[in-house]
Amino acid sequence: VNDTTAMGPGREFDAIRALVRRWGPRAKGIGSDAAVLQIADGERVVVSTDVSVEGVHFRSEWMTPEEIGWRATMAALSDLAAAAARPIGVLAALTVPPLWRDALVGLGEGIGAAAETAEAPIIGGDMSDGVSLSLAMTVMGRAMHPLTRDGAHDGDALWVTGTLGGPALAFRAWSGGAQPVQAARERFVHPRARIREAEWLRAHGAHAAIDISDGLVADARHLAAANSARITIALDDVPAFEGCDAAEAAAGGEEYELLVTAPTSLDARAFVDTFTLPLTRVGTLSRAADATVGVTVTRAGERVEITGGYDHFSP
Amino acid sequence: VNDTTAMGPGREFDAIRALVRRWGPRAKGIGSDAAVLQIADGERVVVSTDVSVEGVHFRSEWMTPEEIGWRATMAALSDLAAAAARPIGVLAALTVPPLWRDALVGLGEGIGAAAETAEAPIIGGDMSDGVSLSLAMTVMGRAMHPLTRDGAHDGDALWVTGTLGGPALAFRAWSGGAQPVQAARERFVHPRARIREAEWLRAHGAHAAIDISDGLVADARHLAAANSARITIALDDVPAFEGCDAAEAAAGGEEYELLVTAPTSLDARAFVDTFTLPLTRVGTLSRAADATVGVTVTRAGERVEITGGYDHFSP
Repeated sequence: VNDTTAMGPGREFDAIRALVRRWGPRAKGIGSDAAVLQIADGERVVVSTDVSVEGVHFRSEWMTPEEIGWRATMAALSDLAAAAARPIGVLAALTVPPLWRDALVGLGEGIGAAAETAEAPIIGGDMSDGVSLSLAMTVMGRAMHPLTRDGAHDGDALWVTGTLGGPALAFRAWSGGAQPVQAARERFVHPRARIREAEWLRAHGAHAAIDISDGLVADARHLAAANSARITIALDDVPAFEGCDAAEAAAGGEEYELLVTAPTSLDARAFVDTFTLPLTRVGTLSRAADATVGVTVTRAGERVEITGGYDHFSP
Repeated sequence: VNDTTAMGPGREFDAIRALVRRWGPRAKGIGSDAAVLQIADGERVVVSTDVSVEGVHFRSEWMTPEEIGWRATMAALSDLAAAAARPIGVLAALTVPPLWRDALVGLGEGIGAAAETAEAPIIGGDMSDGVSLSLAMTVMGRAMHPLTRDGAHDGDALWVTGTLGGPALAFRAWSGGAQPVQAARERFVHPRARIREAEWLRAHGAHAAIDISDGLVADARHLAAANSARITIALDDVPAFEGCDAAEAAAGGEEYELLVTAPTSLDARAFVDTFTLPLTRVGTLSRAADATVGVTVTRAGERVEITGGYDHFSP
């Protein structure tokens, strides 16, 4: 049963109706001006918005419409994971050029599958014409005690979920005109927001978290800045994807894994047993004077420079 | 004082920092993965997302960057007004092509001014490169008793705020290569979300509401569909902007005025005294069998056809 409010006539609304039919019970209340949510006493509402633009975040030759929809949705949900928030709703604002209209149901299917995996109904959105495909995904979540970027304690260790470098490998293959190996491609097109993992980490003592969308080192820099801290990362400890150098794994973005700070006593084995996903200690964090805030990367004890981390506004 | 979480280096983050500096105390907590909000017991959270795309919703020759930012933000806030919700936060996901980067501060100023007018802090967003300027604005609000589209009672009268047709006049002038008169232009570039007006209307007995973004008749069709009702609108009663025919006023979109259903006893004079804004009874609503759900428009008692209402997906 779908409680979608009826909409008037028009091709734009026909397109929305087709999506909503496809979503079935995964959509709730679409067709109103705004979605209405009820929040339990004492819980915080966590919200984030994330845009995926054709030609900037992905190329249409690389992915099916389903994969584009999935990836855009999970990328947004990953920001909720960073806050250890449980998803309560997804809003999809889609800019769909004429050439993409036939792909709309596929895009919707990917959005719906990702939302369903994260147990979040699709509660709203918008649809517009335009010259390039763009998915602006807004996600809402709830948490009694959200994790933030800036809660690190002096002396925390730095832990990362998963294995890094798959998306970088896929990107490198595509950019060179080749097809990536299937496992690397999967990491790019089917990221998973680490929702349950984040709740576990918060419950087991994590102090601060960020998701690795810009790359391990680039996001560690955000974490360092947010905590006025010096972070040291040992490349030798970075869990690299097969076929990927540790430096590439540490620089590559689009991971949507979590980087958390926690006491060195964190029980990584219990995490691995629960989620069948690696949790690896990759560095340390210590409070620092302003001039020394930042990230140091070492290999075999020697300091190395890591560049990279995607910056849309680089020349 | 700004509690923006520190961000790491990078030109994208420099651009965000420049915006946040410009916003000053109007921005809160930007730089985290997600914004965190506290909601009072019993209140509902209302959320909506709305995209404004260059070349679809506006042309850059028509408006300054400040006006583009203002209009995109107010268009989104207008969906909160339709729910009689009080704004609690704005998220701005901006796709900014290279040619628009110098205009970013102006866009931000318009977004900030609109958010400030609506008493909503800017709590998050995203920034991306792209080939055309796009502003995906997500707005959050709170309400103990949100108004919805589908709450109309059989026999309600239909009331509209403000004077209609200004944006249509401006659009017509621009499309013909002329400059619109200043008052009509203002209605297009500086819409006002009817936040306080909506709260008043809800408190004084309104049953259902929608904002007129698609046009009076087109949005009345949505209202009819949502309530399984027949709506009759008398063009003779439509409050038309000076220089605008009632039919054009009833068809033109981009108004961001409110269309509400309420008992015929609604005290319009008290509304006008409070807000110095017209509130005009333009029609009636009655429950209808499926085959007769829709909108009838009359002029001097004769039925007329109104086309229009912007549809992005029309050929």
